[in-house]
Amino acid sequence: MGTRLGALVERLGGQLVGDANLEVSGIAPLADAGVSHISFLSNSKLRAEALQSKAAALIVSAADDAFIAAGYHGARIVVPNPYVYFARAAQYFESLTAIVPPAGVHASAVVADSAQVAASAHIGARAVIEDGAVIGEHAVIGAGCYVGREAVVGEGTQFFANVTFHARCQIGKRGIIHSGAVIGTDGFGFANEGGVYIKIPQTGRVMIGDDVDIGANTTIDRGALADTIIEDGVKLDNQIQIGHNCHIGAHTAMAGCVGVAGSAKIGKYCTFGGAAMVLGHLTIVDKVHVGSGSMVSRSILEPGQYTGFYPLAKNADWEKSAAIVRNLSAMRDKIRALEKTIKTRTENES
Amino acid sequence: MGTRLGALVERLGGQLVGDANLEVSGIAPLADAGVSHISFLSNSKLRAEALQSKAAALIVSAADDAFIAAGYHGARIVVPNPYVYFARAAQYFESLTAIVPPAGVHASAVVADSAQVAASAHIGARAVIEDGAVIGEHAVIGAGCYVGREAVVGEGTQFFANVTFHARCQIGKRGIIHSGAVIGTDGFGFANEGGVYIKIPQTGRVMIGDDVDIGANTTIDRGALADTIIEDGVKLDNQIQIGHNCHIGAHTAMAGCVGVAGSAKIGKYCTFGGAAMVLGHLTIVDKVHVGSGSMVSRSILEPGQYTGFYPLAKNADWEKSAAIVRNLSAMRDKIRALEKTIKTRTENES
Amino acid sequence: MGTRLGALVERLGGQLVGDANLEVSGIAPLADAGVSHISFLSNSKLRAEALQSKAAALIVSAADDAFIAAGYHGARIVVPNPYVYFARAAQYFESLTAIVPPAGVHASAVVADSAQVAASAHIGARAVIEDGAVIGEHAVIGAGCYVGREAVVGEGTQFFANVTFHARCQIGKRGIIHSGAVIGTDGFGFANEGGVYIKIPQTGRVMIGDDVDIGANTTIDRGALADTIIEDGVKLDNQIQIGHNCHIGAHTAMAGCVGVAGSAKIGKYCTFGGAAMVLGHLTIVDKVHVGSGSMVSRSILEPGQYTGFYPLAKNADWEKSAAIVRNLSAMRDKIRALEKTIKTRTENES
Repeated sequence: MGTRLGALVERLGGQLVGDANLEVSGIAPLADAGVSHISFLSNSKLRAEALQSKAAALIVSAADDAFIAAGYHGARIVVPNPYVYFARAAQYFESLTAIVPPAGVHASAVVADSAQVAASAHIGARAVIEDGAVIGEHAVIGAGCYVGREAVVGEGTQFFANVTFHARCQIGKRGIIHSGAVIGTDGFGFANEGGVYIKIPQTGRVMIGDDVDIGANTTIDRGALADTIIEDGVKLDNQIQIGHNCHIGAHTAMAGCVGVAGSAKIGKYCTFGGAAMVLGHLTIVDKVHVGSGSMVSRSILEPGQYTGFYPLAKNADWEKSAAIVRNLSAMRDKIRALEKTIKTRTENES
Repeated sequence: MGTRLGALVERLGGQLVGDANLEVSGIAPLADAGVSHISFLSNSKLRAEALQSKAAALIVSAADDAFIAAGYHGARIVVPNPYVYFARAAQYFESLTAIVPPAGVHASAVVADSAQVAASAHIGARAVIEDGAVIGEHAVIGAGCYVGREAVVGEGTQFFANVTFHARCQIGKRGIIHSGAVIGTDGFGFANEGGVYIKIPQTGRVMIGDDVDIGANTTIDRGALADTIIEDGVKLDNQIQIGHNCHIGAHTAMAGCVGVAGSAKIGKYCTFGGAAMVLGHLTIVDKVHVGSGSMVSRSILEPGQYTGFYPLAKNADWEKSAAIVRNLSAMRDKIRALEKTIKTRTENES
Repeated sequence: MGTRLGALVERLGGQLVGDANLEVSGIAPLADAGVSHISFLSNSKLRAEALQSKAAALIVSAADDAFIAAGYHGARIVVPNPYVYFARAAQYFESLTAIVPPAGVHASAVVADSAQVAASAHIGARAVIEDGAVIGEHAVIGAGCYVGREAVVGEGTQFFANVTFHARCQIGKRGIIHSGAVIGTDGFGFANEGGVYIKIPQTGRVMIGDDVDIGANTTIDRGALADTIIEDGVKLDNQIQIGHNCHIGAHTAMAGCVGVAGSAKIGKYCTFGGAAMVLGHLTIVDKVHVGSGSMVSRSILEPGQYTGFYPLAKNADWEKSAAIVRNLSAMRDKIRALEKTIKTRTENES
């Protein structure tokens, strides 16, 4: 169930130093790799570990190869970016054993007559596909998923079990939506009349590009009047909430538990650490990196790394520092008084 | 598929200035509105934009109308609260095209013999309704929903696809529960015996009033012995967690990702920004407004606006300020020492 | 539907002072208990309340019994830990009326031929059990649950409705997984190539011990290459996110909305308050207690209680303190300048 090194290099590129007919059974980190594995050196600090790895072959950069070539017993594949090569090699090994869901509609699924399901698509047990929905070639709709009216699922996109994808929303090609995610739920929009909330119908859609991954139990609201937009290559982890009318630029990634309030406009190539929060109607430009647990309360118009969370401390120490934070303006006033006293005395003396 | 202005005003009130027979096809914001749309001016700062809107008609307050009447080309509906009127008008436009799920039980649904389902209710594909559950007139139970034993769903309440509503819980009239929400799960109650947790059965219910909206993937725990209470008109966004035995007062609204620990008692007409957190067993009185990302760690007994989150900064600046926060008591001690030094010198000199 | 006190003591231990034939119908807190209830005194501060309780019998510690024996009208069960005894008694009362789902597979469930379902297990309506899955004796798989290929569910473990439990993951005995939880979703692992994310296949599992409870809509990622591990007795509340390759030690408990990033290693007997966050690749030793809303950004190598959140204040006060926090290094510089000025003056004068 493995592969020859030659076959791997033919498929993924790289310069092979060693026997092209050598068989490797899988990929593993340096420390865990056995004698039938290929491993990878993606961090130069691990050169010593690489030399001691049992792996039959190693994915390595040219810079690191210069150091380990002499001492390493096995074959090497020299590549520009060993970690990316590892990802692709792992995908290849996985493809050798992956069980591809068969084309066709499970007998227990409920598919509307007017839905268009490609012949090569898989519709799992108990899935529901509503009127006018379109499921592309090689798409996989897992067991128990719900696809609403006139929703569109692109070619090769996979929904794991129990995804809810509401009416008229669209996702492009090669996407993944994990279990429990809910796409296209109503946004949180109300007008307040004397304390009582009047619902504003949410009639926009969620429009998702190609190569987008959406994590388990993540929710993305449909737009109020216009659409919520998720551009190509966006990666969202689990338990994320994206409000209505947000726009998330291409290749932006968000870790688990992030929340983005409505109408936020986020650029391309941004990253958000876990549980970061973004208030509504803000603009964040391209290449902004927000740290975990940080609250973005104003627009960020300059690329860079931003953080804001209270530092953890022993509880007793935190209680002291928090009490002072509560009264920081008193502390500032004391400093001003001191400055004034000294200034007065200096003036009096001169 | 639109409506005459006269019909709109007959239904929703307001003073029409213009042709009652003018047809409008839908509602849109000032900037997006086309020549067949009605739009609305809910913020006086946008008066100039209103004058340039292509909209055929405008919803406007008397105060703003005094400014724009002369310059605006189209019809106007003058009302006390344009934003509320917009919400109602949008509801009306939506009702013209909305597809109402048909009365009846889908063939693939599993409904217990002892459940009482009103004739006008809709039970979607693959839904499960357990023994003794009661589903009111015109209620809509979406595809894949689960309604537990003896649960009660009020008249006109809608569950979107894949809602879980557990045994004996109740929701009133005209409510909405969005996909993935879980109502009536066990609260987090344990007794600790030498480090090991012993589960305390959670035998209370979740009792939900009329006109309550609950967002996607929001969870509300059933009470331990007594009930968890959600009063009329409460609006909960997505990904919210409400602990067991909480009591949330009427017309309180919470944005996404809010968490409320067990037995918190929250008043009426409160608002909670996204990701605000409330510790357990606290009391929050009516008309308290808690900012996003703020942790409520003590009871709030006075109405008002409360906030508490660490301000975002460039990462390097945050590192500096966080290091000082960690040692604020050292800074306070230095100030005290300075004060003492100066006081001593002053006394010595006099 | 109640029990004799004698039967309770036979089953759960404790020293009964009073009539063994007295019937009690249920258990309730001191204030709520009626004349047919048993109640419990688990907090010595409530002794006065206990004396006034209507309860027919009281669970009490020896220390408290010395105070209330004379004044309390009813029977007493004297035990080492009244709260633990309450939990066990409540479990017993619940067992008297609980409706145990019947053994067998519901007609609407979809169970693969190669799945092994124990004869005493319950498979609910619309559940899907994939190839090679193993469901243990007396296990309960609720309506709409999904159990993936070769997943293993231990004896007596219960899944509430609409749980997703992915391929090859395992859970031990007597566990509970609440509705909407997703176990074994892909971890968030990518290699970045020129700004574009390349997915790293997630081929590890989630391995869960005995007596583990997992809350509603909680998500646990499968490992990337190795497994994610949840040891015996762990209790996870709702809406928690556990990243890939985490290891959570036995009898650790986490309240709602906690997030743990990938590869964190957490010890035994720890507790995490609601919405606490743990960054990836950290180590937290046994018996660490992290407060609600606190961000763990470094390893914690010493047991104890840790906290870190910004204190809540009236909004105007927060704005002042937050502005100063942003410029704390300026404040520190002023203090240093003052110290220097005074030092210089002192030196000049001497």
